[in-house]
Amino acid sequence: MTKKTIAVLPGDGIGPEVTRAAIKVLENIADLHDHEFVFQEGLIGGSAIDEKGAPLPHETKELSALSDGILLGAVGGPKWDHLPGGNRPEKGLLEIRKSLDLYANLRPVKAYASLIESSPLKEEIVADVDFLIVRELTGGLYFGEPKMREENEGEMQAVDTLVYKTSEIKRIAERAFQSARLRKGKVVSVDKANVLESSRLWREIVDDVRGGYPDVELEHMLVDNAAMQLIAQPASFDVIVTENTFGDILSDEASMLTGSLGLLPSASMGSTGVGLYEPVHGSAPDIAGENRANPLAAIASAAMMLKYGFEMEKEAERIEAAIEKVLADGYRTADIASKSEEAVTTAEMTDAVVKAL
Amino acid sequence: MTKKTIAVLPGDGIGPEVTRAAIKVLENIADLHDHEFVFQEGLIGGSAIDEKGAPLPHETKELSALSDGILLGAVGGPKWDHLPGGNRPEKGLLEIRKSLDLYANLRPVKAYASLIESSPLKEEIVADVDFLIVRELTGGLYFGEPKMREENEGEMQAVDTLVYKTSEIKRIAERAFQSARLRKGKVVSVDKANVLESSRLWREIVDDVRGGYPDVELEHMLVDNAAMQLIAQPASFDVIVTENTFGDILSDEASMLTGSLGLLPSASMGSTGVGLYEPVHGSAPDIAGENRANPLAAIASAAMMLKYGFEMEKEAERIEAAIEKVLADGYRTADIASKSEEAVTTAEMTDAVVKAL
Ligand SMILES: CC(C)[C@H](C(=O)O)[C@@H](O)C(=O)O
Ligand SMILES: CC(C)[C@H](C(=O)O)[C@@H](O)C(=O)O
Repeated sequence: MTKKTIAVLPGDGIGPEVTRAAIKVLENIADLHDHEFVFQEGLIGGSAIDEKGAPLPHETKELSALSDGILLGAVGGPKWDHLPGGNRPEKGLLEIRKSLDLYANLRPVKAYASLIESSPLKEEIVADVDFLIVRELTGGLYFGEPKMREENEGEMQAVDTLVYKTSEIKRIAERAFQSARLRKGKVVSVDKANVLESSRLWREIVDDVRGGYPDVELEHMLVDNAAMQLIAQPASFDVIVTENTFGDILSDEASMLTGSLGLLPSASMGSTGVGLYEPVHGSAPDIAGENRANPLAAIASAAMMLKYGFEMEKEAERIEAAIEKVLADGYRTADIASKSEEAVTTAEMTDAVVKAL
Repeated sequence: MTKKTIAVLPGDGIGPEVTRAAIKVLENIADLHDHEFVFQEGLIGGSAIDEKGAPLPHETKELSALSDGILLGAVGGPKWDHLPGGNRPEKGLLEIRKSLDLYANLRPVKAYASLIESSPLKEEIVADVDFLIVRELTGGLYFGEPKMREENEGEMQAVDTLVYKTSEIKRIAERAFQSARLRKGKVVSVDKANVLESSRLWREIVDDVRGGYPDVELEHMLVDNAAMQLIAQPASFDVIVTENTFGDILSDEASMLTGSLGLLPSASMGSTGVGLYEPVHGSAPDIAGENRANPLAAIASAAMMLKYGFEMEKEAERIEAAIEKVLADGYRTADIASKSEEAVTTAEMTDAVVKAL
């Protein structure tokens, strides 16, 4: 029997209902495999601002740092959009990433045969899509200093800084090559080396690191070309590694390919051993609390926690298989139901997954 | 009779053959409308490096600055990929943009009914696509200082700087609102205001400028969301305005939507009155010199020069109508021919356009 403490940060919008679904699935897995999962809840994002005046209260930080893994729902919503940058819900997410040094954001993108119809792309283009985006998450434009406003020649200007240290590039490149070894052995490193100095360093270091992985194929691709190839031939990718901002844009672009945004999980891994697991989708305030949200991305994120965080490979696969089964059986929440299909509720979908375990 | 001097910068790869095609069409238009176009050729990119040792020789700069409009082919190729950043073909393009202050890159994206089949997206998603991307072209991460390497705590780091002045944001926003007035009256301004200080200033200034265009609708959209919406509902856009790097990524993503990359033109407009017109596609070194390249993007770029640079609206429309006609008549270069269609050569396609004028 293994005991694990899981920090649960539901956040805003549909965050609470989808994390509740994931907890239910985890509790069932614990029973089936004789583990003990202890869940400890914390505030983050808009709800934390409302109750504690800050998007990442001290208690949440502590709770998270002491846990074995963090399950997050989603943050943000129009209610807090008027707040200044430093005190917005998203800031809670940025802070927890930085404070736990969660530098590697892993986002698998995979076509589910039973959902391909709902993709905006043609079936022949997306049928075999199965890749992993490895996004650097604690460097680059997001955190570089200076990040400020200043007067210049009588007018206001604003500055952000894109900075990467060799060691930051090295560790994310290592992750990418390691991941590729467990997959199809092909890394595409995305940069803008024809314009950016940081990209030129990125490219050099990635080449260096590759020396240790002669069995893995490496291709460098410019970010504008990558944005094209993700649409033109998405099935050609295996592992994509890229810096923070490019990764933000490309992974959201990629999330649209297979028509299954409501199913995509993510893991943010760091140097401390504690990982953060969250759905790729946002807080969807328009349907919050209506029992209509798709819980599968949160449930799949819980599976990633088992696999990457707790080395519970078999348990993770059991959840993944259950997700495939309920989809094959025709269960559809509103976001993935076609016009002719009847949509199930969040709770119904969750129960179906539990039964399929 | 109007006389205009046109600087022709063929560049590398397929650049020479597609600019030749555009010149042929322009010569015919001049005859038909009793204009005089004087063409003056200059070196840029890799071929300039080979002949003059620099990607933008002094003569080319002068020739361009003194012209009424610049027609560019494409730059770059594997032959020059080993060169250091400061002396690569692309540097010629960056330099001419900066030296002529070509701050507004206009990229129309439109579905051609006869080509929709070759789109990777489903027909119902892309059928009504018709938008314009207004990309800021002389600021942001591309040109901000510092842009360098330095030692920090015993290791190498690389820095790029994203900086925008109020006046830079103001003038590109004005362009976007003016363009929207001539279209469907809807601007989407794309930024990353939840993370970047420069985006927060961008958003404020765009809001300010909008005050002068109360008839135009304005929506702010985060760049990651924009990358998703371009795939999910591309037909919902009219004018998209964004900063240099985001514009680079999003406009290349957008160029894949309609299956007609080989047809997309662009115009880069500045404060001096001289504009630069070039196809969106690259130099395609793999098919250079084989009489297989699609000349339509270069020809459409020439039409943009007539419309935006010379106020020759009727002449521009004549070219656009000719392009639509040859497509409707079934002419296809290799890049847009389906498996069952026979491809025509660059020269044949050009002649067909000339005949259709
Ligand atoms: C909420 C926002 C700050 C965040 C980011 O840009 O990283 C989100 O878009 C994501 O991708 O996780
Ligand atoms: C060649 C390169 C420097 C250029 C850019 O990034 O601006 C190109 O990608 C473009 O979009 O015109």
